[in-house]
Amino acid sequence: MADNTYKVTEVVGTSTESIHQAVRNGVAKTAETVRNLDWFEVTNIRGHLQDNEVGHFQVTMKIGFRLDET
Amino acid sequence: MADNTYKVTEVVGTSTESIHQAVRNGVAKTAETVRNLDWFEVTNIRGHLQDNEVGHFQVTMKIGFRLDET
Amino acid sequence: MADNTYKVTEVVGTSTESIHQAVRNGVAKTAETVRNLDWFEVTNIRGHLQDNEVGHFQVTMKIGFRLDET
Amino acid sequence: MADNTYKVTEVVGTSTESIHQAVRNGVAKTAETVRNLDWFEVTNIRGHLQDNEVGHFQVTMKIGFRLDET
Amino acid sequence: MADNTYKVTEVVGTSTESIHQAVRNGVAKTAETVRNLDWFEVTNIRGHLQDNEVGHFQVTMKIGFRLDET
Amino acid sequence: MADNTYKVTEVVGTSTESIHQAVRNGVAKTAETVRNLDWFEVTNIRGHLQDNEVGHFQVTMKIGFRLDET
Amino acid sequence: MADNTYKVTEVVGTSTESIHQAVRNGVAKTAETVRNLDWFEVTNIRGHLQDNEVGHFQVTMKIGFRLDET
Amino acid sequence: MADNTYKVTEVVGTSTESIHQAVRNGVAKTAETVRNLDWFEVTNIRGHLQDNEVGHFQVTMKIGFRLDET
Amino acid sequence: MADNTYKVTEVVGTSTESIHQAVRNGVAKTAETVRNLDWFEVTNIRGHLQDNEVGHFQVTMKIGFRLDET
Amino acid sequence: MADNTYKVTEVVGTSTESIHQAVRNGVAKTAETVRNLDWFEVTNIRGHLQDNEVGHFQVTMKIGFRLDET
Amino acid sequence: MADNTYKVTEVVGTSTESIHQAVRNGVAKTAETVRNLDWFEVTNIRGHLQDNEVGHFQVTMKIGFRLDET
Amino acid sequence: MADNTYKVTEVVGTSTESIHQAVRNGVAKTAETVRNLDWFEVTNIRGHLQDNEVGHFQVTMKIGFRLDET
Repeated sequence: MADNTYKVTEVVGTSTESIHQAVRNGVAKTAETVRNLDWFEVTNIRGHLQDNEVGHFQVTMKIGFRLDET
Repeated sequence: MADNTYKVTEVVGTSTESIHQAVRNGVAKTAETVRNLDWFEVTNIRGHLQDNEVGHFQVTMKIGFRLDET
Repeated sequence: MADNTYKVTEVVGTSTESIHQAVRNGVAKTAETVRNLDWFEVTNIRGHLQDNEVGHFQVTMKIGFRLDET
Repeated sequence: MADNTYKVTEVVGTSTESIHQAVRNGVAKTAETVRNLDWFEVTNIRGHLQDNEVGHFQVTMKIGFRLDET
Repeated sequence: MADNTYKVTEVVGTSTESIHQAVRNGVAKTAETVRNLDWFEVTNIRGHLQDNEVGHFQVTMKIGFRLDET
Repeated sequence: MADNTYKVTEVVGTSTESIHQAVRNGVAKTAETVRNLDWFEVTNIRGHLQDNEVGHFQVTMKIGFRLDET
Repeated sequence: MADNTYKVTEVVGTSTESIHQAVRNGVAKTAETVRNLDWFEVTNIRGHLQDNEVGHFQVTMKIGFRLDET
Repeated sequence: MADNTYKVTEVVGTSTESIHQAVRNGVAKTAETVRNLDWFEVTNIRGHLQDNEVGHFQVTMKIGFRLDET
Repeated sequence: MADNTYKVTEVVGTSTESIHQAVRNGVAKTAETVRNLDWFEVTNIRGHLQDNEVGHFQVTMKIGFRLDET
Repeated sequence: MADNTYKVTEVVGTSTESIHQAVRNGVAKTAETVRNLDWFEVTNIRGHLQDNEVGHFQVTMKIGFRLDET
Repeated sequence: MADNTYKVTEVVGTSTESIHQAVRNGVAKTAETVRNLDWFEVTNIRGHLQDNEVGHFQVTMKIGFRLDET
Repeated sequence: MADNTYKVTEVVGTSTESIHQAVRNGVAKTAETVRNLDWFEVTNIRGHLQDNEVGHFQVTMKIGFRLDET
């Protein structure tokens, strides 16, 4: 088993529904351009408020993916 | 566009259902007495346990709101 | 009222559904072997990704329980 | 049991005697204007020095209290 | 010298010019409604970007003030 | 001198008197079931409030102890 | 309003003049290759010293930008 | 694939040689009494000094292991 | 001397041997596609365990590199 | 009023009695060789255990003092 | 190129003008007694308030300098 | 056994070889001018890169030593 290297990218996924849906949305968007996605880690949960209610949950996360062998 | 000032208040919202519902409950309660709510940031997620199950999710959050011009 | 002592154990609950379900699963598993569970605190939210989607949410939490009097 | 909301206020209690007395002083002062006090958490312990001795212990703490039902 | 108690409030001052001006603006706005201001501590420096430039510096700070004797 | 291994356990000691007594109480309770206790480190100081006064100081601490040779 | 996703990039802007100019320089350089810049957050302020004076202020910051819809 | 639960234990491994050897020693000692070891994370690197040299490297780490199904 | 801007990328280098070799492996892989590498900073040291031994050391690090003048 | 500069030194005060006495002991020892002491801040509270009891409280603190004008 | 060792000293520079001037003042004062100054890192930005305005910006920073070969 | 006081100094040890050798080098240099060295704690691991390889590991550490009785 080789000594793989992984790259970590940071994204903010958003959702009007829930925190876990914001995670899924951020992962889905990232998967459009990056492959070999391996793990994520949530680093911040926030959101903006409008009309006295939660407008969007905004979840910052690190997403790790394996770099191809060269 | 003026140099607005925002105030940050800290509340703990609770819910027997989920973490995102605890956020919504805390925001709704805050909106009863404060206006111009702008954003929130979760700083702690905990809860108390009773009969070996989650009793309440307790989500601590900062809530920012814009101060009126004077 | 006596000066109780509490012990804190650290577990990682997982769920394919949501973050709050991962908390409930971790609590339920812990309750099989420990009693007097009192509170939990989430210290990390992460997960692994497979086929470009969230495989499992993995929620690390501290769980506190009261030690029996001796 | 309802989904209560709690507010968190931050104060600095001081004492020439000890750290725990500074906590008690800060709580007592807060109790003059706020009710339903529920918990505190110490976030900083410092003090100023004069004549090469501790002048005052200054203990920063968060104090949580339950908001009334509306 | 009495055992004073201090309260800490959290505000976000903003400025289109600089970080230190954002601090001054936040202090000035706070001084309109609170007296006995004693110290501040910066806890976050951020801002929003528009047209590829800094729109406003947004400086979060704790501001401490002495509570009156009762 | 051998390469010892230490285990770290986390407990919350409580006291109605002071922070240092809460540490002592937590250590004493731990010593009932663990031996070779070596050090402690305080990681959180909090407490609950009742009737507008400190009910109990609750001090979370890590306690390290040496594992026996095998 | 769609569930946007944002990407976060980390850069170090530098300036011989001031901290806020280092922020502006880092933003300007980033804007040469990235569009839809939305916010920044300072995570570190340091610099190198030469001839007993500040040579450059080096300000590390996260810069967030909105990903285009697909 | 089931929703596994993992437990996290904290140990301090030591070595007169190197930091990575201290990790290996701590893992080996833990493996004597726990099975299904899955991952570790280093949380502190320290050591004691004697005769003006490093006596032992002391590496604190969290070790995660999978709990058996019941 | 110009006001350079640096970009920071985050990678996880791995090694079956040691922590410092994991750093070297991550740097070498990054150097295949990025030039002007300037510094690194370790932000996390962990690894996975198999057969009760360290399988790989996994070292997360920030790597800074100078952006070319335009 | 001049733009004073302060230096910060780090010491560990110890006491068999209490945490606040450990602070006082560390300040008293520092005052033997440094003057113009101005403030302290506690950064760590730990201790060593012997015979299943607290041997010494060990309190790490930063101590700030004003540098003389030149 | 030898394996240099650096020492890190902690100072608080102050200024009535700005944060970056407080940094410069602290560096200038340090340079009166220490040579081979190499870098600084800001660890805290605070200040005291008088007459409802900023009296002094107080910037805590670590300053690193190279120790001479022996 | 007396209530000893310890002083903590901060140094950066470097090595072209490994992280643990950088620790040893920093300790050895410190031991040239300070006696009664007691412990160290690593607070940062970084390094500079040249020609796409690790030039030096730079390990920041706190070193504690016992002050003599007076």
